Amino acid sequence: MQTTTATAADVPVSRHEPRDTASAPFTSRHIGPRPSDAEQMLAELGFDSLADLVDAAVPADIRQQTPLNLPPALTEAAVLEDLRAIANRNIVKTQMIGRGFFDTVTPPVVLRKVLENPAWYTAYTPYQPEISQGRLEALLNFQTMVSDLTGLEIANASMLDESSAAAEAVLLMHRANKKSARTASGGITLLDADLYPQTRAVIEGRARALGLDVRTADLATGLPAELGADLDEKGLCGIVLQQPGDSGRVHDHSAVISQAKERGAMVAIAADLLSLALITPPGEQGADIAVGNTQRFGVPLFFGGPHAAYMAVPKGLERQLPGRLVGVSQDAAGRPAYRLALQTREQHIRREKATSNICTAQALLAIVASMFAVYHGPEGVTAIAQHAHRQATRLAAALETEGFRLTQDAFFDTIQVSVPGLARTVVTAAEAAGVNLRLVDAGTVGISCDETTTDEDLVAVLSAFGAPRESLPARQDSNASSTSTASTSTNSAAHDAGAPASARIPAAQRRTSQFMTHPVFNTYKSETQMLRYLKRLSGYDLALDRTMIPLGSCTMKLNATAEMESISWPEFCSIHPFAPDHQTEGWRFLLGDLEEKLAEITGYAAVSIQPNAGSQGEYAGLLAIRRYHLDNGEGERDICLIPASAHGTNAASAVLAGLKVVVVATAPDGTIDSADLEAKIEANSGRIAAIMITYPSTHGVYDADVREVCRKVHEAGGQVYIDGANLNALVGLAQPGQFGGDVSHLNLHKTFCIPHGGGGPGVGPVAVAEHLKPYLPSAEHPITAAPYGSAGVMPISWAYLYLMGGEGLTEATRYALLNANYVAKKLGDAFPILYTGETGLVAHECILDLRELTAKSGVTAEDVCKRLIDYGFHAPTLAFPVTGTLMVEPTESEDLAEIDRFIDAMLAIHAEMEATTPQTLAGSVLRNAPHPAEVLTADEWDRSYPRSQAAYPVDSLRRDKYFPPVGRIDGAWGDRNLFCSCPPIESFEASDPADSATSATAVEDNIESSSSVSH
Amino acid sequence: MQTTTATAADVPVSRHEPRDTASAPFTSRHIGPRPSDAEQMLAELGFDSLADLVDAAVPADIRQQTPLNLPPALTEAAVLEDLRAIANRNIVKTQMIGRGFFDTVTPPVVLRKVLENPAWYTAYTPYQPEISQGRLEALLNFQTMVSDLTGLEIANASMLDESSAAAEAVLLMHRANKKSARTASGGITLLDADLYPQTRAVIEGRARALGLDVRTADLATGLPAELGADLDEKGLCGIVLQQPGDSGRVHDHSAVISQAKERGAMVAIAADLLSLALITPPGEQGADIAVGNTQRFGVPLFFGGPHAAYMAVPKGLERQLPGRLVGVSQDAAGRPAYRLALQTREQHIRREKATSNICTAQALLAIVASMFAVYHGPEGVTAIAQHAHRQATRLAAALETEGFRLTQDAFFDTIQVSVPGLARTVVTAAEAAGVNLRLVDAGTVGISCDETTTDEDLVAVLSAFGAPRESLPARQDSNASSTSTASTSTNSAAHDAGAPASARIPAAQRRTSQFMTHPVFNTYKSETQMLRYLKRLSGYDLALDRTMIPLGSCTMKLNATAEMESISWPEFCSIHPFAPDHQTEGWRFLLGDLEEKLAEITGYAAVSIQPNAGSQGEYAGLLAIRRYHLDNGEGERDICLIPASAHGTNAASAVLAGLKVVVVATAPDGTIDSADLEAKIEANSGRIAAIMITYPSTHGVYDADVREVCRKVHEAGGQVYIDGANLNALVGLAQPGQFGGDVSHLNLHKTFCIPHGGGGPGVGPVAVAEHLKPYLPSAEHPITAAPYGSAGVMPISWAYLYLMGGEGLTEATRYALLNANYVAKKLGDAFPILYTGETGLVAHECILDLRELTAKSGVTAEDVCKRLIDYGFHAPTLAFPVTGTLMVEPTESEDLAEIDRFIDAMLAIHAEMEATTPQTLAGSVLRNAPHPAEVLTADEWDRSYPRSQAAYPVDSLRRDKYFPPVGRIDGAWGDRNLFCSCPPIESFEASDPADSATSATAVEDNIESSSSVSH
Repeated sequence: MQTTTATAADVPVSRHEPRDTASAPFTSRHIGPRPSDAEQMLAELGFDSLADLVDAAVPADIRQQTPLNLPPALTEAAVLEDLRAIANRNIVKTQMIGRGFFDTVTPPVVLRKVLENPAWYTAYTPYQPEISQGRLEALLNFQTMVSDLTGLEIANASMLDESSAAAEAVLLMHRANKKSARTASGGITLLDADLYPQTRAVIEGRARALGLDVRTADLATGLPAELGADLDEKGLCGIVLQQPGDSGRVHDHSAVISQAKERGAMVAIAADLLSLALITPPGEQGADIAVGNTQRFGVPLFFGGPHAAYMAVPKGLERQLPGRLVGVSQDAAGRPAYRLALQTREQHIRREKATSNICTAQALLAIVASMFAVYHGPEGVTAIAQHAHRQATRLAAALETEGFRLTQDAFFDTIQVSVPGLARTVVTAAEAAGVNLRLVDAGTVGISCDETTTDEDLVAVLSAFGAPRESLPARQDSNASSTSTASTSTNSAAHDAGAPASARIPAAQRRTSQFMTHPVFNTYKSETQMLRYLKRLSGYDLALDRTMIPLGSCTMKLNATAEMESISWPEFCSIHPFAPDHQTEGWRFLLGDLEEKLAEITGYAAVSIQPNAGSQGEYAGLLAIRRYHLDNGEGERDICLIPASAHGTNAASAVLAGLKVVVVATAPDGTIDSADLEAKIEANSGRIAAIMITYPSTHGVYDADVREVCRKVHEAGGQVYIDGANLNALVGLAQPGQFGGDVSHLNLHKTFCIPHGGGGPGVGPVAVAEHLKPYLPSAEHPITAAPYGSAGVMPISWAYLYLMGGEGLTEATRYALLNANYVAKKLGDAFPILYTGETGLVAHECILDLRELTAKSGVTAEDVCKRLIDYGFHAPTLAFPVTGTLMVEPTESEDLAEIDRFIDAMLAIHAEMEATTPQTLAGSVLRNAPHPAEVLTADEWDRSYPRSQAAYPVDSLRRDKYFPPVGRIDGAWGDRNLFCSCPPIESFEASDPADSATSATAVEDNIESSSSVSH
Repeated sequence: MQTTTATAADVPVSRHEPRDTASAPFTSRHIGPRPSDAEQMLAELGFDSLADLVDAAVPADIRQQTPLNLPPALTEAAVLEDLRAIANRNIVKTQMIGRGFFDTVTPPVVLRKVLENPAWYTAYTPYQPEISQGRLEALLNFQTMVSDLTGLEIANASMLDESSAAAEAVLLMHRANKKSARTASGGITLLDADLYPQTRAVIEGRARALGLDVRTADLATGLPAELGADLDEKGLCGIVLQQPGDSGRVHDHSAVISQAKERGAMVAIAADLLSLALITPPGEQGADIAVGNTQRFGVPLFFGGPHAAYMAVPKGLERQLPGRLVGVSQDAAGRPAYRLALQTREQHIRREKATSNICTAQALLAIVASMFAVYHGPEGVTAIAQHAHRQATRLAAALETEGFRLTQDAFFDTIQVSVPGLARTVVTAAEAAGVNLRLVDAGTVGISCDETTTDEDLVAVLSAFGAPRESLPARQDSNASSTSTASTSTNSAAHDAGAPASARIPAAQRRTSQFMTHPVFNTYKSETQMLRYLKRLSGYDLALDRTMIPLGSCTMKLNATAEMESISWPEFCSIHPFAPDHQTEGWRFLLGDLEEKLAEITGYAAVSIQPNAGSQGEYAGLLAIRRYHLDNGEGERDICLIPASAHGTNAASAVLAGLKVVVVATAPDGTIDSADLEAKIEANSGRIAAIMITYPSTHGVYDADVREVCRKVHEAGGQVYIDGANLNALVGLAQPGQFGGDVSHLNLHKTFCIPHGGGGPGVGPVAVAEHLKPYLPSAEHPITAAPYGSAGVMPISWAYLYLMGGEGLTEATRYALLNANYVAKKLGDAFPILYTGETGLVAHECILDLRELTAKSGVTAEDVCKRLIDYGFHAPTLAFPVTGTLMVEPTESEDLAEIDRFIDAMLAIHAEMEATTPQTLAGSVLRNAPHPAEVLTADEWDRSYPRSQAAYPVDSLRRDKYFPPVGRIDGAWGDRNLFCSCPPIESFEASDPADSATSATAVEDNIESSSSVSH
């Protein structure tokens, strides 16, 4: 909402009339079943028409009365033309603004084969590790890269953005620092004044919600003496530093770090990952936490996001780490195998005890960054860092020669120049010369160099200062050519005293340690090698480009090529988030228009697209409610009612927004227990801040009494938060903003076709009613590092809306219902459908109850998930919202043949379950699933079932068979032997797989088997 | 050469200086081995440096003395920027010129997942069918689509372009029409006056070379009476018609066809494939041959090419069909399996008896066109045809209402309007309104509608005629919405008399028959389905994105992403080949610059990039020689000397250029037998037109006496043609134009990185010395349909040259030598290297002699090829140039690890051969290779070797294993049971695979097993 400066009058689109077109409408490409299929499916369900089915399924009292007021559907060509026109309203300049965002070259092979490749971008979060070994390896590479560069042992598989990662670091220090946690306030946290402004703003917002004592001070030379008394009294929980600073300065943090440690404080450093190729890493400086952005490792600027941030900690803190962590474990045959480690830390397990609400992170971008590292290797990354530094150094020298004063001597790639009263003039002149600089204040200009900075760029900058081309000192090329050799000696070039590549980095801050020494970073150097490596990894995985991913609540549907195409256009992806407004008209129009359309769809007054994940949307929405009550003088309203069936993230977000969670019971029919609701309202009279419900519920049904629930909460003075996770079942049929909601977040990566990317990017806009508009995230109250969050992927949703039009979107919802009800009908006899609405119908997903079968046969729902892999399927959602069940969501994009293939697989598995008893379970085809090719082709076979039953239980598999690269993975083993970076190559070559080398270096650990809940 | 109107002064490139860049130079991305690898490899070979190796390998007397005079290497970013600047000099208009080229929408999913996907574009010609089932299925779909639409039973897997396909049709009629073949001249061939001018020009050029009597006449209403006597005397061999005609007219050809048949003539019709959705197909009109372009089935205009043309014939003529033909056969277990059929027809088998020289065709573009058909299906294709027709009909009505006269009443999508004296004015006005029309002559304007033509386009056209927007009649939308239903009834909508969709097609010419009824065209309708279908097919295949393809003479090397990226930019791919020059400045600069650079590399005076395949380059070069001699009054020079080791296409091209082939013997050391050469020169004194040699020779060595060979031929008055197939071993080291050649063709799809595309596009520029410049192909003497041949893919080679620079290109050559000599050295003990140069070295490839091993063990070279599949490799070149051998070319792009993996596989196979005897052969792992997963996981196993030996003969396969989808394919069975369109779905479901349904409908045929020569 805050993004919209453009209005409808600015519409740049050339043609909003539907064209007379020869092609089939896009709707028929997005929706799977043909009309004739629909007839057959409706007949199966006993309905005459799709409209009849919808009328029966969706409660009449929430139905919207008028069709969506959206433009009519356009063809793919027309939408691409419109996007081109919008893109052309952005102006691409050389971006030297810095402030956490730097230009970079995405290696073309990575751009096309990862970022634009459905095998990577349509993949789901790797909760089923056996079919995710490729992306798990890529994420492990990411962790290894971060761990090596930061000098800290454990790095997670990415964070949402640098600023929120820094905020998470503050929270981490608060819970990990046992000493200060014992104090009343939890101790003071000090932020260095030289943090990026957006980082400070996001931390402060988070701290405010939780009542943490966070202050900013100049920590450059140590803890400020004037704070001594306060620190003595309240304790120092932690400090947050930045290296290099916002000013560009390379700090010597040794004094402040040792003072802080003396006070028992923890130390977090936000560090530019590229700079760490040349600068002493945080781990070697004594930091407990390092965070930062990995954007400049090959990820486009994207107008601010999505980018993968990172967080790394030393051993001992791994259990405190938010986000996902990939670790090495082993499969049933003892082969090394990757999977998510320590899942019991995760918010969806911990619920109201959660300490972070991070769910989806930025997997796709983390993979791009990791592949940038794989492609360039330690020498290449060093050369890139040296280049950025050398260009900054030469520019500094030229400006100093011309008589300008820099605000600091020690820097990496960013300098600030003092030009009293003239900063705007210089910035304007630079822009005219094609370069964006940073207007720091009226008298200071910031300039950041990067991988792409050419001499011509420097000359353009100099011209803006009135300095001649000749002032630029000659390049010293001694290092320039070293990247073409295979020797690893170039690393050391970085710390030759006086060498141009580290001229302005003080000797004490220069890095001396090696990094990225693992073979993976030193092998794939030619494009052919890189291409094959990427192909091999993606070949291990099952993504939407090969199979239905019937994940209840996750809405894994088509991410159309035409929707994806524009995101890598330079006019979209090469725009800096802090570029001046007149260069970003296209972006701001598109984002504003998207917000408007989403408001129309949800029936709310306004939308902010800033939240860069569903969890962030939840947090933003709940925070809006919290702030609203505070402004109304009702600060005592701090209770958030959450039904027992809610996704764990709901509770976690409520906690982070400063609310207390009270759980409302579920009635036997899956709806909210209205007596319990009334009791909880009564018991917390005057303290009800909100109820947070998902609609249709996580049980996959439309509760008929949702209006009544909303009314009760409103009467009690609470606000109604309707989680939009299941909006795929509402679009065009009902509007949460109209049937009782005050606020909702949406998941653009679910309903609106942004691909899941193997675990991110997620995008979670928050939508609010009129009275909550002032509390939306904004530039003043940001929750993300970039003003527009994950702007870079928004053209996907924008394109989807225009390709479908109002009627097409509504039709998609109808087909989502049809597909889900067809699955429920066909599978219901074998697997009871746990919940249905009053008419016996489900919404867009259905829960298959396996518990009775499990009791009889011993076969668990997890066994079924693993066995589905042998049938070539990704599992449905396991054990959410009810353990012992599977939740299936086919979405509208799956066609009848694929749905029938799934049904056939489930029925075949049902027969296999019926043939299994607790006695035969251990040797059964189900418990031993999945079956890798190596197992199936073994010379010896002593199983109780034939190979053919394992490999080809249904005939169609003989034409199209996926073999998982590993057998069932033992997650608990990996958690007991935690190892979270690239394993030594020999571990794959061990003749006896049980003799895996990973155990040798593993952290000893005794944790219970991690849960396998997935969402 | 004719293409260059831009000069060096026009260089639009922004920056030709090498940038100070942080990235590794592209050379190190293109070349596989690292410098440290090279050291190790050189040590193995006993050389101190790469320069020493090169000096030892390449004869001193041919070495070029100065480095290539080319610009220095640029970064990928800089080259893309330059290409962007060049592209921006092209102007994209709405293209309504027609004349064989029409705008179309490439379905985004097909664009990104086929045309831009290395799994498809890096694949080799499917000579190894077991690893090519995906692209063979796609090509079979193409054949089925063409066969269905033309109404002729047998269609081949594509032709180079419509015009040369028409020329091939004329040649086909000349050899197939036994009656007229007996006459002295072979009979007269009549071309209808309403052929596209380019088609006529190409046919006439071909006919001239061969002395055929080809004439043009107006055949619209029958055979011209005035030709009666001539026809009586000389016989009528065939007629060539076009439907719709160049004029746009939909002809009633019934009279001329029946008159021609009465005279025993054959009938060829060049037909617009899209029009055949509405118009009676050639097969139903009695045609013997149909040819045409399939470009408008989703293939971009590409400034004229590459596009896949087609040719179809009735049963009985299949053996006369040029080009490749995919057919259905079965594998060792009786499973249906695809492979190339009737290979004995092909030019490389028939050599000087060849009747066509087509080698590579346009596989990648044929696949795109076939997938367009799969995606749209019969209804969609019909709707697209109806749309084009409807728009033309409405435009015609508007113009007629406004008082303009059309030159014909019956048309499909193209009309011509009579505007005496004003045509140029109208065309200019239309251009100003954004639309390109065709300037037919001073008084006639041509207008073609297509899939993309909008009402706004029509309004713009009308405005150019001074007609108001209102003159356009309202759309009758009855058919427009029918595409969104799944019913197949819309096909019949096309022939409702009076329906707007067929208003201007006379009732007698309307199609009534069904087409594309096979399930493949009626199944994959959603984008998700299409995506998965494409993924499944590509998963069957091994392409360069998974493995080394060590094909001697074929130079399968990196096709870098940055090189590929620009070809789908609208400013390149949406330009019509006959757009006015001022709209195509970028294209003409790029093509001219490319010609210049290629001339520099080869040492010739000039280059023409027109030939759209290597074979076309050969033909163009030999034709230049032929025409040169004729102009010098030496028409009696008609002998082309060709060494016995030459590729068969050489001889075929010579025949087509009107030359007679005399074979020169090969000496035992593989060089040209100089005594035999002298003898042949002597015996044919005064008749020597040329010698055609390949250098380095097809034996993979640099003949030391090449200068001497050239001298002898020159002395005898002959010209020297140096086949550039092996230019990968010369670039930067030696120039054929300087060491004796008068003409060469190059293969941009070999040396210059245009990908093979699974069997095309090929690009074969011809380079000539000064005295042959006048004889290069030109607009007046074209050999292809489009003036610039396959312009669309030239940016790939252009980018390659600029990314590498002169030194980089030379370095690539050096590494090509290094890699080949390393392979020869490491494998030479196991498999004798058949030929080496005087210093014991090979050039860029080496021939492994298996004959002794075969004699001992019975294991054939083909067995080795099939066994390599189990090791995850594509086979080397089999049986060329010497049967019983394998020719290996690693190219510079393969890295040491991959080369070592290949060497290990070959050595392991060698051990397997040694363990095999003629007695154990039949049951051996070699003879039973390759092993599909289904075989390896069978419940029963009664082989003489364990499963593990079959599947994982080397350990690395356990981490990265490719399973072929079928076992060894029985090619002969398929030729005996010829079936060349999509087999019924049931054939894959037959429980007993031997019971395949294909045999039921197969053509009975008794041909010997097809040869397995590959190239």
